[in-house]
Amino acid sequence: MKIAILGFGTVGEGVYKILTESKDLYQSRFGQSIEIEKILVHNVAKKRDIKEANQIITDNFEEILQDPNIELIVEVTSSKNQAIEYIRKSLMAGKHVVSANKAAIAVDFKELQKIAIQQNVHFKFEASVAGGIPVLSSLGRLIAFNDISLLHGIINSSTNYVLTEICKGRDETEVIAEARELGILEANPTDDIAGFDARRKLAILAMMILQIEISEQSIPSIGITQVDSRDSEILNKLGYEIKLIAELLNGEKSGLKEKQIALSVFPTALNNSKFNRVNGMMNEVTFNGSYCGELRFYGAGGSMYPTANAIVSDIYETITNKPLYFPVKENQYENISDQIESSFYIRIPDSLMVNEDLNNEIIEMAEKILLAKKEVIIFSKPISNQKAVEL
Amino acid sequence: MKIAILGFGTVGEGVYKILTESKDLYQSRFGQSIEIEKILVHNVAKKRDIKEANQIITDNFEEILQDPNIELIVEVTSSKNQAIEYIRKSLMAGKHVVSANKAAIAVDFKELQKIAIQQNVHFKFEASVAGGIPVLSSLGRLIAFNDISLLHGIINSSTNYVLTEICKGRDETEVIAEARELGILEANPTDDIAGFDARRKLAILAMMILQIEISEQSIPSIGITQVDSRDSEILNKLGYEIKLIAELLNGEKSGLKEKQIALSVFPTALNNSKFNRVNGMMNEVTFNGSYCGELRFYGAGGSMYPTANAIVSDIYETITNKPLYFPVKENQYENISDQIESSFYIRIPDSLMVNEDLNNEIIEMAEKILLAKKEVIIFSKPISNQKAVEL
Repeated sequence: MKIAILGFGTVGEGVYKILTESKDLYQSRFGQSIEIEKILVHNVAKKRDIKEANQIITDNFEEILQDPNIELIVEVTSSKNQAIEYIRKSLMAGKHVVSANKAAIAVDFKELQKIAIQQNVHFKFEASVAGGIPVLSSLGRLIAFNDISLLHGIINSSTNYVLTEICKGRDETEVIAEARELGILEANPTDDIAGFDARRKLAILAMMILQIEISEQSIPSIGITQVDSRDSEILNKLGYEIKLIAELLNGEKSGLKEKQIALSVFPTALNNSKFNRVNGMMNEVTFNGSYCGELRFYGAGGSMYPTANAIVSDIYETITNKPLYFPVKENQYENISDQIESSFYIRIPDSLMVNEDLNNEIIEMAEKILLAKKEVIIFSKPISNQKAVEL
Repeated sequence: MKIAILGFGTVGEGVYKILTESKDLYQSRFGQSIEIEKILVHNVAKKRDIKEANQIITDNFEEILQDPNIELIVEVTSSKNQAIEYIRKSLMAGKHVVSANKAAIAVDFKELQKIAIQQNVHFKFEASVAGGIPVLSSLGRLIAFNDISLLHGIINSSTNYVLTEICKGRDETEVIAEARELGILEANPTDDIAGFDARRKLAILAMMILQIEISEQSIPSIGITQVDSRDSEILNKLGYEIKLIAELLNGEKSGLKEKQIALSVFPTALNNSKFNRVNGMMNEVTFNGSYCGELRFYGAGGSMYPTANAIVSDIYETITNKPLYFPVKENQYENISDQIESSFYIRIPDSLMVNEDLNNEIIEMAEKILLAKKEVIIFSKPISNQKAVEL
């Protein structure tokens, strides 16, 4: 199969390297090959480690689109709007598309599914959620006959890295500066730190599972901007660690009523949980299906090779599988994401502690509750998610 | 697609139930259906909860084999030799086969792959390893371009249940009796307890990954017969827990030399490991691939619905995917399973402690080593796996 790669950043280069390095292994196992026909870049003059670069590199997307030999487009550009355009045009031209662009996929999920179905081509996006973990392919098959009642995930690597380091007792400002230097956080880290990236991935998962439209913005989310080393110190002492958890609750088995759903992305204090070994850049997605039971998938959340591995898996599945679609249907659920109540951790900052008597009273009270029942002491009474996000 | 189910034990009944219950969900998602045409049983007179049973139930395998409408055979009988016969004949007749029969698959892997390839039909066996966890489907795709250097698994549910209970401080005889009563262990539990079931599954995984023939018998394996509550008490105090671990080492990245491989199934004392949450009937398989990095798959290792779920997944993949084969090729590896050295835990039984002075000396020595370097105290010097199995 002849393919084109749009973009040659870290992931694009990873895809190029895997396909080049594993050519023999793939050929020996499957007696066929995947040929990179074109690579789309901004600057064709830039020196790159690509064989026969002058034949392969182009800055002209139309040239790729018009080439009837190219059956599959790997979209790994970094811009959201251009990516949507590339994906849409490629699907419309009857080409399969494999993309890692979660922003583009989340925002245009419904329409892109529709076009892919009309054109009878593959539209695959394993790399867009939980990087190198083959969770979408497994989930995609399982929902053919399983109702998914519950999904939890650590699906943002950079915040998981930051939280892991903070939980070691390090200062949050120092950790964030370091993460930026290491390229773990982008120059503008808002998307990650505010939880937008995680809720975008949760929206994709939810649209696959529920087959309804879920906008990112509708998911109550609190990032990790308000988590600092004092919080982790207090919580660690109590046996908790802090993780940014994306959650989907669906129906009675998740504790809601039938046809009720609730989604959220919150930093969560976890005590002895299944996620306690998911540290640094690693991700984990767990879900419960009516027949498969609880499944957990753990692996690298990002970085060059794992992400590129997910893309190559998608290319491979495009060759070997029939297309799998996730059409968005009419909403049949009551989304109670905003109304659902959780217990929230509240630390009263020194600046608000104006009255020493009151301070001491609160501390004393907290201690008493701590002694009486460890689990609740530093958590608030349940308040609604909407309220929590507003606060 | 019209299918037949051979056998109506726990798993066969689970498959029947899932296909019946999820008919609407499947139909609504995929616009097609899976019809159960025949179910093969020993005793047709036995009352079963099957719709239109008198049309579906049969004790005549030939009738199923000759029916050109039946495209896929689900083999979930319990006997090994008959299963091999059924699988072979079905493949030869050009029918797809989905089987859960690890004993049959392990022993005839090479030939069954060969027939499936010749006949260009699917031969799938997700349920044969790690029950409900979709690990074979993921692994099968990943090895198209990943070298797998390392694989570890808890892949026998009943021994994991027994070890989990023993590690709680319970007596091993009591736990084993209970497990038999609960049906977790069979009346003759040797296959599980001696590690034969685990090494059989490891052989299947290894044949997929390495594409060479691996006989079960060639895998050094020690079951859990020699693990008792005193061991777990001693090891627990030191922060260890005991798990029956199946291991595949492959090449330099696993610490061996290039083209060297080693397999084993040993009860292993684990300290703070990734497996520390894999308890009771749960399984986990982890592996490292050249590009995908470390992946972990966790889920139910057996029981009706998870196992049946794996079988239905295979049926579904047969409909949607091209066949995936794991042909066995000429051996290009040096198998050093017997030579490789590990540290083994040795407890000197009271009966051997005839000399009180010697006893005290050993205990004193052990304590000294314990104080000096926690990790090694109760482990032997490295001895070869072969030697260990003999002992």
